[in-house]
Amino acid sequence: MLLNRNSKTPLYEQLKLSLQDQIMMGEFAQGVLLPTEIQLCEKYNVSRITVRKALEELARSGLIERVQGKGTIVKKRKFAKSQMEIRGYKGALNSQGFDVSSRLLEKNIVSSQGNEKLITLFRLSPASMYEFWRFRRLRYLNGEPSVVMTSYVRKELGDKMLDHPIQEPTTSFYELLEKITNRPIVDNEAIISAVAASPEIAKLLHTQIGTPLIWFQGVSYIDPHIPIEVNYSFYLGEKFQFQARYYRTQGGKINKEQI
Amino acid sequence: MLLNRNSKTPLYEQLKLSLQDQIMMGEFAQGVLLPTEIQLCEKYNVSRITVRKALEELARSGLIERVQGKGTIVKKRKFAKSQMEIRGYKGALNSQGFDVSSRLLEKNIVSSQGNEKLITLFRLSPASMYEFWRFRRLRYLNGEPSVVMTSYVRKELGDKMLDHPIQEPTTSFYELLEKITNRPIVDNEAIISAVAASPEIAKLLHTQIGTPLIWFQGVSYIDPHIPIEVNYSFYLGEKFQFQARYYRTQGGKINKEQI
Repeated sequence: MLLNRNSKTPLYEQLKLSLQDQIMMGEFAQGVLLPTEIQLCEKYNVSRITVRKALEELARSGLIERVQGKGTIVKKRKFAKSQMEIRGYKGALNSQGFDVSSRLLEKNIVSSQGNEKLITLFRLSPASMYEFWRFRRLRYLNGEPSVVMTSYVRKELGDKMLDHPIQEPTTSFYELLEKITNRPIVDNEAIISAVAASPEIAKLLHTQIGTPLIWFQGVSYIDPHIPIEVNYSFYLGEKFQFQARYYRTQGGKINKEQI
Repeated sequence: MLLNRNSKTPLYEQLKLSLQDQIMMGEFAQGVLLPTEIQLCEKYNVSRITVRKALEELARSGLIERVQGKGTIVKKRKFAKSQMEIRGYKGALNSQGFDVSSRLLEKNIVSSQGNEKLITLFRLSPASMYEFWRFRRLRYLNGEPSVVMTSYVRKELGDKMLDHPIQEPTTSFYELLEKITNRPIVDNEAIISAVAASPEIAKLLHTQIGTPLIWFQGVSYIDPHIPIEVNYSFYLGEKFQFQARYYRTQGGKINKEQI
């Protein structure tokens, strides 16, 4: 049917992606039975082995469940959701019942030279030189590596962070930044896209090269809108969803009445 | 260095993804020269052919530019950005100088039966039966297929839409919905993730199976917060970025003072 027999992607993988599409669009509802193996063989004109392998992969990714003597049921998938409110990774996910922890992979000082993007995001003068602490963390969701997060802060602030146990697997950078500055983080500007896992990221996340990841660039602000932290993160697409809300604006400003 | 010689992903593809990571994180600034081919060969311990192929792929995706007699420059990448305000696909992208158009791929009527997700998103009673029009469109950005967008509206509303030229490549569903209901769309609740292109979607988008896509589920509301349209879209990750803004909330409500 829809499978491409000339593609280098194996047929079972193609079938898996096709069923995944239909599940994500609600065409196969949660809790109902999928077509039987034989029906899938006929519909897609593939062997029983191909169908089984596709269903095994979908079961492994948590999208379906194979119930002995009953068939294949579409599971209610539990995604970790990034909330529309600021609570940080740890706060947001703990509140959803996920167990979260981190491992500090690297810490090093980088200069603003040649990193135009950091200069812009921190709203600094391009003419001067600055230093930043760069902290790269591997973050776990229920014990599995799920996010590679690289955070940048100004050097002076990072020095103060190092007085705290930032290597601890349960340290929240958000809470730490708020404690050190004694100011709340009020606003986070995010840019979200999708990318394929590079060899380095794939290795850290125990996944294959090319796996779809959510690429997230976030800038956190403390009152009154001073950028305090920039982070670039790679989230496993099969585990995370980001919520966002878009409002009608008037002349470029958000219409508060409608919030 | 970071390349995985046991992976089935070719080395040039791995090198491409690795360089892409570094560019997206600003480690290679826009406008500066990348390391030379020879430097890259040494750093990654790969052949000149591998390096050339990786650079060619990056150039094709618009991330770098090879300047004769000078070297390889990191380009200022132009992404299509989904704004934080509601203007619809067409409105938002036209305002950024992109040429946008659409092709209607399919229109059909679907029942609420077995589609629990639509029932929930439209806030309907699970006990009753409803019908929806389902419109699937292929959307183009500067003439290239870039998004597969499937929109659902209640049947009665869809019937009225069909009185208008919805097949026209420049028709905006948002404008049409506002015209028919005579009410503005004030709010769009979005869920964003990353998925691999299925065979069907890959074919429509002229890309390879497995390419990373932004998966977008949106629910549009008309005043006073009545869901009017649900859409599931697949955006090419290499062309689009979504902007979102997260605020500190107090007791689950957005703190208006901080907007």
